[in-house]
Amino acid sequence: MENTEQKADHLSHAFSNAERAAVYKAITTRRDVRSQFLGDAVPEHILARILTAAHHAPSVGFMQPWNFLVVRSAEVKQRVHHAFNSANEEAKLLFSDAKRELYSSLKLQGILAAPVNLCITCDRTRSGPVVLGRTHMPSMDLYSSVCAVQNLWLAARAEGLGVGWVSIFHEAALQDALGIPEHIVPIAYLCIGYVTEFNDQPDLEKAGWLPRLPIEELVFHERWGIQGQNSVATKTEGIAEDSNLTSHLRNIRESGLSGR
Amino acid sequence: MENTEQKADHLSHAFSNAERAAVYKAITTRRDVRSQFLGDAVPEHILARILTAAHHAPSVGFMQPWNFLVVRSAEVKQRVHHAFNSANEEAKLLFSDAKRELYSSLKLQGILAAPVNLCITCDRTRSGPVVLGRTHMPSMDLYSSVCAVQNLWLAARAEGLGVGWVSIFHEAALQDALGIPEHIVPIAYLCIGYVTEFNDQPDLEKAGWLPRLPIEELVFHERWGIQGQNSVATKTEGIAEDSNLTSHLRNIRESGLSGR
Repeated sequence: MENTEQKADHLSHAFSNAERAAVYKAITTRRDVRSQFLGDAVPEHILARILTAAHHAPSVGFMQPWNFLVVRSAEVKQRVHHAFNSANEEAKLLFSDAKRELYSSLKLQGILAAPVNLCITCDRTRSGPVVLGRTHMPSMDLYSSVCAVQNLWLAARAEGLGVGWVSIFHEAALQDALGIPEHIVPIAYLCIGYVTEFNDQPDLEKAGWLPRLPIEELVFHERWGIQGQNSVATKTEGIAEDSNLTSHLRNIRESGLSGR
Repeated sequence: MENTEQKADHLSHAFSNAERAAVYKAITTRRDVRSQFLGDAVPEHILARILTAAHHAPSVGFMQPWNFLVVRSAEVKQRVHHAFNSANEEAKLLFSDAKRELYSSLKLQGILAAPVNLCITCDRTRSGPVVLGRTHMPSMDLYSSVCAVQNLWLAARAEGLGVGWVSIFHEAALQDALGIPEHIVPIAYLCIGYVTEFNDQPDLEKAGWLPRLPIEELVFHERWGIQGQNSVATKTEGIAEDSNLTSHLRNIRESGLSGR
């Protein structure tokens, strides 16, 4: 009886099957969009929704270190595009000949094509010098702004909006193009708009740049390097469960993450 | 006619109203949980689902730099808890007297109470020294692992699982407790389990630590510092739209983000 009540308690916080499937759909069908932007305007109320989603990200010590700089003007986009081009010429040279040819064939940004560009930043001075939870891990404020990016990205997917994160910039050039003060860290420069399609695979996977890694090889148990079906580990009770985890991970990898 | 077809094209990628509302529900009801953990086991197939959600995060150059170290044993949790305690004693001293009293009253972690702990890491050497998109923004790989954290966090909310991110550790002490090599960066230490409840507000907001900032003050247009209803800015056509954005943001703040 007590057990039944506890189960009911869990279930009262879980989403319905349909709601849960929608969350997994956003997560698995989200793409880093570079080539498929339509020019159509993004309605203001929808832009307001995805920005509000970003603002609901977790932040260390509840400092909410982010700002959202919305860019729509062709002139500002041109400046940012110029900063991308300079950096991209440098980046290209770092790849070996074979990889460089593939690299050059990739479309890496939609700055001019996307109707809305958005820079999400981190103000490390917000809420003062001492921040709850940042003392020993000083990057936590930067990570909070990244959580805002991911919230916005998933909300945008649900709205049918594509988002592409462009990171091929010198930080100072991007700050200069947008008038961002030196002490404010640009975390993400995002291109946002409706799209002709969402690809079924990430662009770089499709192009043969790198394969998706098998998740079960990335999961360790109790200690770095101990995998689920490791012969030493399976001797302990705790790890018998872990072997199960490995087969569940493999099953999901093969049959998809529907959440149902 | 052409316009109608384009509209249909947008709509074919947007989620249904109910699906979109589910995504916003995950985003707005997600909490950083510290106090409400139940001891009940997390089923392996559900743990596998939220880990797979994490693995579907975006990553710079598709490098997928993350690993997932699952901790269930009391012994390992005790070591991690010890590392937290040492760091927390140091952190406490940095606050002024008034803030310190409030700080000491806050519950900041559920390491021992949560049935599953999870460390999400970043292997900066994965896929070799040159990573597409990381050359000019060297933190991009760390940010990719943070996106994995946020994916997992939202998936967990949909499953009815609470997650709390503990960042009060010396990095070396956490690496030591988990056998993590020096070159691997621990990004997030997460406490995961079913909960008695999800609070309606973040703990730190509820405790009066800091208030939630009004989002419309965080949004700039075209250039750092230019707000929506700025008198200079409203003269240009682009910014007339932005004033609208400000009122939409305010409306959502007052009436909630249902996505409907």
